[in-house]
Amino acid sequence: MRVNGRHHRSIWLADDGWSVEIIDQTRLPFEFVTVRLTTVEAAAEAIRTMRVRGAPLIGATAAYGLCLAVHEDDSDEAIRAADATLRATRPTAVNLGWALDQMAAALAQQLNDRVQVAYARAAQLCNNDVASCQAIGLHGVEPIQAARARKATEEPINILTHCNAGWLATVDWGTALAPIYLAHDEGLPVHVWVDETRPRGQGALTAWELGHHGVPYTLIVDNAGGHLMRTGMVDLCLTGADRATANGDICNKIGTYLKALAARDNSVPFYAALPHSTIDWTIAEGRDVPIEERDAEEVRMARGMAASGDVVEVRAVAEDCPAHNPAFDVTPARLISGLITERGVCAASAEGLHSLYPERARND
Amino acid sequence: MRVNGRHHRSIWLADDGWSVEIIDQTRLPFEFVTVRLTTVEAAAEAIRTMRVRGAPLIGATAAYGLCLAVHEDDSDEAIRAADATLRATRPTAVNLGWALDQMAAALAQQLNDRVQVAYARAAQLCNNDVASCQAIGLHGVEPIQAARARKATEEPINILTHCNAGWLATVDWGTALAPIYLAHDEGLPVHVWVDETRPRGQGALTAWELGHHGVPYTLIVDNAGGHLMRTGMVDLCLTGADRATANGDICNKIGTYLKALAARDNSVPFYAALPHSTIDWTIAEGRDVPIEERDAEEVRMARGMAASGDVVEVRAVAEDCPAHNPAFDVTPARLISGLITERGVCAASAEGLHSLYPERARND
Repeated sequence: MRVNGRHHRSIWLADDGWSVEIIDQTRLPFEFVTVRLTTVEAAAEAIRTMRVRGAPLIGATAAYGLCLAVHEDDSDEAIRAADATLRATRPTAVNLGWALDQMAAALAQQLNDRVQVAYARAAQLCNNDVASCQAIGLHGVEPIQAARARKATEEPINILTHCNAGWLATVDWGTALAPIYLAHDEGLPVHVWVDETRPRGQGALTAWELGHHGVPYTLIVDNAGGHLMRTGMVDLCLTGADRATANGDICNKIGTYLKALAARDNSVPFYAALPHSTIDWTIAEGRDVPIEERDAEEVRMARGMAASGDVVEVRAVAEDCPAHNPAFDVTPARLISGLITERGVCAASAEGLHSLYPERARND
Repeated sequence: MRVNGRHHRSIWLADDGWSVEIIDQTRLPFEFVTVRLTTVEAAAEAIRTMRVRGAPLIGATAAYGLCLAVHEDDSDEAIRAADATLRATRPTAVNLGWALDQMAAALAQQLNDRVQVAYARAAQLCNNDVASCQAIGLHGVEPIQAARARKATEEPINILTHCNAGWLATVDWGTALAPIYLAHDEGLPVHVWVDETRPRGQGALTAWELGHHGVPYTLIVDNAGGHLMRTGMVDLCLTGADRATANGDICNKIGTYLKALAARDNSVPFYAALPHSTIDWTIAEGRDVPIEERDAEEVRMARGMAASGDVVEVRAVAEDCPAHNPAFDVTPARLISGLITERGVCAASAEGLHSLYPERARND
């Protein structure tokens, strides 16, 4: 998508043909800084410290991280070590393991030209992700149009989103934001309520993305969505997912579950948008998804630009204040109106997912 | 309650016998600073800028603000002007209007000695508030004991609270925190999950209070409570209220409704603690309570101590980022397990409230 009018992806091969460039998302929305990764360790660090984040982009970065390892040493041992390093960075995003599995499968069949094979597979994964997000966008316009039909006025369709599931979280387009970009481009009047998304504040990324694309939006604290839904100010909730389980539960950024509860209580449709790589067919229910617990320091701190113009972290409580930081929660399928994937919109259930992915239903 | 081992109230008469001292709560938890108020304008500013906050303390500060006005000019005109200035500071807290009505009633019957009458009534309102909070504490131990009985282990009883409804929000003891202080003092093992409470971060005040009293607690972001409830880590939710309506709905800090929804979805009891002055018998339902909208800048900013040791505000988004800042939401009575008042615990319903306040049921 566009940054200052110029098209960007969130990850791309550098001009040298082997190193990889990313946008340092920890510097946004204040500075647009790109970083060149040359080692698997640098790729792992970028994932762990959330310079890159969002399930699909984590997968893409892991794939290119493995390329960087193979570029240095194409032995089975080096590949196994790189795989382990990358896999340990973030436990919740299923795309991480999925992308590494794809890379491993491609390399296992190939003892020669491993460097070339790895880069080709990583590029393919990225291109597939872009195509997948575009397809999600096309299918996801449908619930937006349905919300507009229910509204029966020319007023903007108010869509609430949580965290950042935009192009910065994928390779391009985004998941939850792809339908919003497409609806906006098609001339549908949309307005987005952007949850701040403490503790990491990914709402700032969503605001930055939407602003650069010209989509009207308003930032709110994570506490506000329930009130907005109760007072008729939200027509649709639309989020991404870090993992969907076989029964249609989703695991997404902490706080998503609370918004889904409010949506249900106020008859506001709640949709999650995700590519097939986010579906974990091996896990029956959301309650079985491991939930990443991040450093408690993230809860004690907030980050932003001070009056001096410096971007600093400030501590809202005493240094020794005990804090707890689960990074994701589970939204049960019963609260989800539908899942939007690259193949269409389906009910959040095993049957719904099987209707879109019949090849997965064969063994049932 | 105690600050560094010494007993404090949140508002008190200065040694000069007429000016009023408060704790500047905007400087907490980093600095314990008291401020001397000498004019009604200073009292109004303290309420508006949230140097004092919490429905009961706002009422007490308004009462003393009126004393400061009368101390300067005891004419009907001056009293009317002071009343209007104070009443306009915060629209949602019913105690503000209630305290001013009490002061007006006391002064209306009295043409002489108005200064003395005003100070006596304000002191009485404060003492009544302390007694009321103590009584809330005594009655509120009951749901904590019930939660312990259900738990049937020696593990701490995990109580989730939102915003600050502690002694800093009242004159002493607090509302939601009074039962917790009493339970802790009685030797019940309690542990408090403290919601950060964006955008103003009143969770930092709750953490500070609990820490000074020795009650175990853990800070969490506002997004986390639902996940904690789903994973069995919360035994009881306990909040204050800024206004309760005749049918038992409560209006409380933005985000309370989301926690009440999660409590209901996970069969966690949800109680609100409030003195009778918080009950607005004139309003039938929560949806009719006016909701204060505060400056959008509060959403864009976060406050805390920088590495330099300075307490600064930082901006998490661009300066022109549109933002919306409703300060309260309504939790419908159907989500509330009970209301804890100075007269006991009752169902959140007109019948429940009438059982505790039969004098209010006479006209039904």
